[in-house]
Amino acid sequence: MGKTNALEAGGACSIARSLGVLGQRWTLLVVREALKGRTKFSEYQEALAISSDVLAQRLEGLSSAGVLEKRPYRDAGTRERQGYHLTPAGRELGLVIAALMTWGDNHLSDEAGPPALLRHRETGEPVELSFVDARGERVALDDVITIPGPGARGR
Amino acid sequence: MGKTNALEAGGACSIARSLGVLGQRWTLLVVREALKGRTKFSEYQEALAISSDVLAQRLEGLSSAGVLEKRPYRDAGTRERQGYHLTPAGRELGLVIAALMTWGDNHLSDEAGPPALLRHRETGEPVELSFVDARGERVALDDVITIPGPGARGR
Repeated sequence: MGKTNALEAGGACSIARSLGVLGQRWTLLVVREALKGRTKFSEYQEALAISSDVLAQRLEGLSSAGVLEKRPYRDAGTRERQGYHLTPAGRELGLVIAALMTWGDNHLSDEAGPPALLRHRETGEPVELSFVDARGERVALDDVITIPGPGARGR
Repeated sequence: MGKTNALEAGGACSIARSLGVLGQRWTLLVVREALKGRTKFSEYQEALAISSDVLAQRLEGLSSAGVLEKRPYRDAGTRERQGYHLTPAGRELGLVIAALMTWGDNHLSDEAGPPALLRHRETGEPVELSFVDARGERVALDDVITIPGPGARGR
């Protein structure tokens, strides 16, 4: 294709930029596992059952992108290995993961209901994702629009 | 691979189920364009600059999944064609798209700042995504956990 396509032109769109980092097959499931606290290659592999090559590529890609950071560790009696820990930017992907989970719960659940529930860590009360305004008031999805920001580019 | 991997086993996880519908390259950018109000094949193609084959596959896939619905239309002097309109389930992907946009704004913006801003349709006030509890109080990301729901399966 001669024209720059929308993923290449991601510069003009934060959604495309995010998908440039997160959009490959498996990447967001690796993030999901990291949010569950997994750090070791073997733990990710056990959880996802994907090939070592693909997993290694995803862990490296997420490390280069600043979502994961490598920290060496050594289990008793073994050589030093790299662990993969979420960075603060990586932890913020909790919002993206929760949005995907909520949509799946609402539209792809089977009769048994949602496989997992969002709760407040301390009170145990139900929690959900919502748009809110500056006063913290909830705003309905249909009342939200986007307008060009300072980084918008003419097309 | 002999073992069922996490995408195939998506049955146990709404995140994996959602990615089963949305996780292919381009799919979420097609949704982004639909949220902007595009409905015609030619409009999607103009906006994304992807091949007709890939676009046709994505539009069909999203229609099968209940994200888009086809409605025939006829422009003056041309044959009848199919338009692709968001269903109510598709419109709810605004939350997923906004989460990806917010993360990109926070971590992948250039110096110019965010390319787009979320605003209230009527008041024009800034709007953002947040976790909230049942009383509508904001809950910090770090205070949100997941617990097994009714649809959880033992592994």
